[in-house]
Amino acid sequence: MGSDINPRLKEIMTSLVRHLHAFVKDVHLTQQEWEVAIDFLTRTGQICSNERQEFILLSDTLGVSMLVDAINNRRSIGATENTVLGPFHVAGAPQRGMGEHISFDGKGERCLFEGRVTDLHGNPVADARIDVWSDNADGYYDVQQPGIQPKWNNRGIFTTGVEGKYSFVGIKPVSYPIPHDGPVGGMLDALGRHPYRPAHMHFIVTADGFQKVVTHTFVGDDHYMTSDAVFGVKETLVAPFERVDDGVTVWRSSFDFILTPAGE
Amino acid sequence: MGSDINPRLKEIMTSLVRHLHAFVKDVHLTQQEWEVAIDFLTRTGQICSNERQEFILLSDTLGVSMLVDAINNRRSIGATENTVLGPFHVAGAPQRGMGEHISFDGKGERCLFEGRVTDLHGNPVADARIDVWSDNADGYYDVQQPGIQPKWNNRGIFTTGVEGKYSFVGIKPVSYPIPHDGPVGGMLDALGRHPYRPAHMHFIVTADGFQKVVTHTFVGDDHYMTSDAVFGVKETLVAPFERVDDGVTVWRSSFDFILTPAGE
Ligand SMILES: [Fe+2]
Ligand SMILES: [Fe+2]
Repeated sequence: MGSDINPRLKEIMTSLVRHLHAFVKDVHLTQQEWEVAIDFLTRTGQICSNERQEFILLSDTLGVSMLVDAINNRRSIGATENTVLGPFHVAGAPQRGMGEHISFDGKGERCLFEGRVTDLHGNPVADARIDVWSDNADGYYDVQQPGIQPKWNNRGIFTTGVEGKYSFVGIKPVSYPIPHDGPVGGMLDALGRHPYRPAHMHFIVTADGFQKVVTHTFVGDDHYMTSDAVFGVKETLVAPFERVDDGVTVWRSSFDFILTPAGE
Repeated sequence: MGSDINPRLKEIMTSLVRHLHAFVKDVHLTQQEWEVAIDFLTRTGQICSNERQEFILLSDTLGVSMLVDAINNRRSIGATENTVLGPFHVAGAPQRGMGEHISFDGKGERCLFEGRVTDLHGNPVADARIDVWSDNADGYYDVQQPGIQPKWNNRGIFTTGVEGKYSFVGIKPVSYPIPHDGPVGGMLDALGRHPYRPAHMHFIVTADGFQKVVTHTFVGDDHYMTSDAVFGVKETLVAPFERVDDGVTVWRSSFDFILTPAGE
C-alpha cells in the first residue's frame, strides 16, 4: 500500500486481508471451492437492483449487520436497545394523530400499540418522533406489493405529547421469510436454515437531546424467536401482546421506549 | 445450521463467519463503512460479464488467489513452482512444431524460448505438453483485442520429444496493467497501489505420471517485479533473458521445467 493514503482505509484493508487469508488457510480452501465462492459472489451482485439488495441479505444472514449495529449502538444500561433497520423502511410516511390507524387493507388482527417515551429516569420525553412500520397479515411490506396493498399500509409517524405517550392501531405482525429465491436463499437452504424472521413491529424513535433508536418489538411466542434468519432478536425487545377483545381491537401491546442522552 | 448438511460446507461457513466477525470487531467497523463495503461488493458483481470477472480480480489483488494456489499446489523441493493461472488462458490453442513462431502481429522484440522438461532427477520427460501464452508488445492478450490482433497471437502448444526439449519463438513479454477501470481499480487507487504485473510468459506443463504445473517465467529486471498487483512473483520463476542479436532474434530465454511425480 502507498504511504499517502487514508489511514483508516489502510487499517481496515490490512485487517481484512489478514482475516481473509487466515480463513483460507484455516479451511485449506481448494481451487474448486474458491471457484464456487467467486461464482456465488458474482451471482449475489448480479441479482441486486433498485428493489433488491442481496449483499445486505448476505450480511444480515451471516450476522454481520447485527454485529455492526451492536458495535456502533451501545446504549446506557436500562435504555431501549437497537436492532437491525432491515430493507423495508421508507422515509416520508404520513404523520398521524395519536390513536389513529395505520392498517388499511382489512387484513390481520387489530392491535393497539401504546406506551411512553422516557429518559433513563422515567421522565416523559415530549415531541419524540416515532416512525413505525410492519408487514401485513400475509407477511409482506407494502413496498413488496406495489399496486396490491394501499399506499403507506402499516406505516405511520407519531409525535408524543407532554406526557411522552404514544398510541396507534395496526395489526399484530406475523413472521415472514426474507427474499429467498436468490443466492442467499440457496445458501440458507444448503445450510439447513429457514429464511423466516419472527413477527415484529419496527420503530425508529428520535428526540432532541437523545440518541436515535432503531429497533423492533417482538411477538415473544413466535415460532421463530430462537432462530431469526438475520439474528435481530434481543430479549429486552420482546413486547407483551395481550388479548383485549373489545369487539373491534383484538390485541394490545404496551412498550415503553427509554432513550439514552445524546453524547453518552 | 441444520444437522443434516454437507460437513465440509459447515466447516467452511463456520470458519468464514468467525473470521468475518473478528474482522468487523477488530476494526470497529462503522455503519457508514459497512454501507461502503456493501456498495463496493454490489458494483463488483454488477460489472462482471462473460468477458470480465471483477471478483477474480478482487481475489487476485488481495492475494487470495495466490494463497489458494500456494495451499493446493505444494511441489517437491527442486520442482518448478506454480503461480496464478490468470484470466487470459484460452483452451485449444494451435499445436505447433518445435522452433515455430507464435507471434504474428509484427510487434515486439523477438525472443527464443527454450529449455527442457525433466523429472526431479534431471531425466528428460518426453511427450510433455507445453501450453504457452503472453501479451503482445502493447501489453494486451489477443482475447483483449478481438479483431485487432491475429487469432491465437502469442499462443501455442508444443510437445517435447525424447530428449524433453522445447523451443519456440515469441516476443519478450512486457508488463501490463490488469483491468483497472472498475471497482477493483478504484480500490487499488485508494490504496496507493498501481495495477501492473511484471512482464511474464505463461506456461502450463502437463505430462503423464506428473503433476500439472501452471506457472509463469518472469523477466527479472522488470520494474514491477517487487510490486506485482496480483502477488504472482516467485524467485525461482525468474528466467534469464539474454541478448543474442543474430539479426533476427533479439533475445533468448532458457528455462527448464522440473516436474513432481503424480501422487506426491
Ligand atoms: Fe421487518
Ligand atoms: Fe499474464
